[in-house]
Amino acid sequence: MSKEQQDKSEVLQSLRWEKDALSLLDQRLLPEEIVYLRLTSPQDVWAAIRELKVRGAPAIGIAAAYGVVLGVADSIADSQTWEAEVNRHAEYLATSRPTAVNLFWALDRMKARARNLALSGTPAAEAKKALLAEAQLIQAEDEATNRLIGEHALTLFKDGMGILTHCNAGGLATAKYGTALAPFYLALEQGIHLKVFADETRPVLQGARLTAFELQQAGVDVTLICDNMAGHVMSKGWIQAVIVGTDRVAANGDVANKIGTYSVAVLAKAHNIPFYVACPLSTIDLSTPTGADIPIEERHADEVSIGFGKRTAPQGVAVYNPAFDITPNEYVTAIITEKGIIQAPYDINLKNLFNN
Amino acid sequence: MSKEQQDKSEVLQSLRWEKDALSLLDQRLLPEEIVYLRLTSPQDVWAAIRELKVRGAPAIGIAAAYGVVLGVADSIADSQTWEAEVNRHAEYLATSRPTAVNLFWALDRMKARARNLALSGTPAAEAKKALLAEAQLIQAEDEATNRLIGEHALTLFKDGMGILTHCNAGGLATAKYGTALAPFYLALEQGIHLKVFADETRPVLQGARLTAFELQQAGVDVTLICDNMAGHVMSKGWIQAVIVGTDRVAANGDVANKIGTYSVAVLAKAHNIPFYVACPLSTIDLSTPTGADIPIEERHADEVSIGFGKRTAPQGVAVYNPAFDITPNEYVTAIITEKGIIQAPYDINLKNLFNN
Repeated sequence: MSKEQQDKSEVLQSLRWEKDALSLLDQRLLPEEIVYLRLTSPQDVWAAIRELKVRGAPAIGIAAAYGVVLGVADSIADSQTWEAEVNRHAEYLATSRPTAVNLFWALDRMKARARNLALSGTPAAEAKKALLAEAQLIQAEDEATNRLIGEHALTLFKDGMGILTHCNAGGLATAKYGTALAPFYLALEQGIHLKVFADETRPVLQGARLTAFELQQAGVDVTLICDNMAGHVMSKGWIQAVIVGTDRVAANGDVANKIGTYSVAVLAKAHNIPFYVACPLSTIDLSTPTGADIPIEERHADEVSIGFGKRTAPQGVAVYNPAFDITPNEYVTAIITEKGIIQAPYDINLKNLFNN
Repeated sequence: MSKEQQDKSEVLQSLRWEKDALSLLDQRLLPEEIVYLRLTSPQDVWAAIRELKVRGAPAIGIAAAYGVVLGVADSIADSQTWEAEVNRHAEYLATSRPTAVNLFWALDRMKARARNLALSGTPAAEAKKALLAEAQLIQAEDEATNRLIGEHALTLFKDGMGILTHCNAGGLATAKYGTALAPFYLALEQGIHLKVFADETRPVLQGARLTAFELQQAGVDVTLICDNMAGHVMSKGWIQAVIVGTDRVAANGDVANKIGTYSVAVLAKAHNIPFYVACPLSTIDLSTPTGADIPIEERHADEVSIGFGKRTAPQGVAVYNPAFDITPNEYVTAIITEKGIIQAPYDINLKNLFNN
C-alpha cells in the first residue's frame, strides 16, 4: 500500500482501478487531506474497509469486488483451484464489516462470475481479465443506478424545499452521485434550489467531513448542524423532507443505517415530515426478514471518547458505540430505488421489485 | 486573572470565594486538565461566562454575583455613588450570555441588596462585606436547594432504572450536587442503583467532558453515548426516565435548555418515557410568557467545525449553531423544584409555587 497526495480542486472519486491496483480515497483524512491509497492485496482492502478508509454500502461492495481481483492477480493456478482462491478471498473480505449487505452482494456476484468462468474452463489469464471487468461493471452499474435513484427522488422535491440528511450517502459512499445525495446533484444541474441540512453524524462525522464537503465542492446550498439540532430545525419549519441512505433493507422494509437515523425518523414523524430512504436494489436483502435480524456492528469506545486525536471524555468511562441502528418500516414514507419509488406494504412491494 | 493547576483526586467545586478573589474551575479544560482561575474583576467574570469557562445556569448566577462583589472591592465612593457602581457592574455582567435567567435573577438580587444597604446609609466598608455575604448566601442556598431537588427527584426513580440525561446539570453547573444529577448522588448515598446514560452533548461536549466525568469520579454507573444514540437506546428498552436541567422555564412551562434537549423530549414521548426537568425556583421566569419569548443564543461556527481542536468540517461551510432549544410544555412530564414536583397545567401550578 502506498499513498499519493492530491490537489483539492480535482473532482473526488471514492475509488478507481488503476492498471494493477485499486486507488482508494482515504475518507478518514477528509476534508483536510486528500490522499489516495494504492491497494494491492485483499488484505489492504480488508483493512481499508474495517478502518473506514472506504465507507458507504455501495462503495464497500465495489472495493471488495476489486479486492477479489487483487487476490488472484498473481495466481497461476488452473481454473478449478483458482475458483477456490476467489472463494477464499471473498470469504475473507466478507469478514471486514457485518452490516452493509452490498458487501456480501458484490462478493457473491464475483463468486458467481468465477463459477461460470471455471465451469466453461476459461484459462486463468483470460478469467482474471473477466473478473476485473466484472468489478468494473459493478462500479459502472452503481453510477448509472444512482443517477436513476436521483431522478426518482427528485420528483419528490420542489424548488425551495429544506431537506435534512444524515451521514454520507453521497458520491463518496458510492461510485458517483450517491444515493440520498443524488437528487441534490441533479437538482443543481436542473437549476432547482434545495436547501440541504447535513447532520454532522457522530462519532465519525461523515456528515461534517464528507457530506458537507462534497456538497459544498459541488455548489449545493448546504448547512451543517450537530445531530442534536435536527429536532430543533424541524420545529422551526425549515425541513420539508428527510432523505438518507441505508446499509441494508430487510424484507419487511425495516432499514439499517448509520447510528442516529432512527432518532431522525422518529423526529420526522413527530413533525409530519416525510422520511425517505434511497438505495439500489443491491441493498435490499429479502433473505433478512426484519430489522431485528440485521447484525449491528459495535465499534471501539475511542471513536467517541478520543474523537480526532484529543480526549474529550474521562479515561475509562463506559461507552456504548453502535455503528448503526434500525428504523422500523412504519417510519419509512418511501424507499427510492433505481426501479422506482416503493411504499408500504413493504413486504409485498419490495418482493415485487425483484419479480418485475 | 491567574491560573492554578490542581490534583485530580480532590473533590471538584465549580467556584469558591477565596479571600479577595473568585476561584473558578475552568470547565473548558475538563476532563484532561483541572485548572482553577483566579478572577479579580467583573471583566474577568464576564469573559469566563461568555467563554463557557463557567456554565450551567445556577453556577453562572453565582459567578455573576461574585463579579459584582469584585467590581466594588476597591471602591471608596459614598453609599449613593457606590450603589450606582453596583448597578453598572450588574448591567455589564448581564450582557455576558442571554438565555439563562439565573444570571439576571442573581444580579437583581445583588442590586436589591445594594439598594437596601444604600437606603440605610451603610458605610462602604460594611456594605462591601454585606454584598460578599449575599453572594455567598446565594451559593449556600443553591447547594441546599439542589439537595432538596435531588430528594424530590429520587422519589420518581426506582432501583435498577436506566436514566438518560443531556448536557451537564450537575455539581459543576451549580454550587454542589447539581439539579438533574442531584438524585444520582443521593441514590449513591442510599445504595439505590441507577444506570445513567449521558448524551455527549455536541458541540461543547458537556455530557462527555463534565457529566460523565463528575459521575464517574463519584462512582455512579454512567455510560457515555453520542447524542444521536438516544433514540436507539430508548428503543432497546434501556431508559425508564429522562431528566435534564434548564436555563429558563417560561410561565407556561416551556423549557429552554441545551441544544438537543427538545429532540430528547420528542424521542422520550415517542417511547412513552417520562421526561423530567429539574431546577430551582430561580430558573422559573414568570415574566416570560412562553418559550417563544426566551432569547436563544447563537454561537460561533467554529464550535461545530473545529470542535476537537482539529478541523472536522470544510473551510467556509455554513453552520447553524444555536446553544439552546425550547421544549414545549406538552413534552414535560414534571418539573422538579426545591418546593416539590409540579405537573401540568403549568401556567397555574408554576404561579402557585411562588405564592405558597
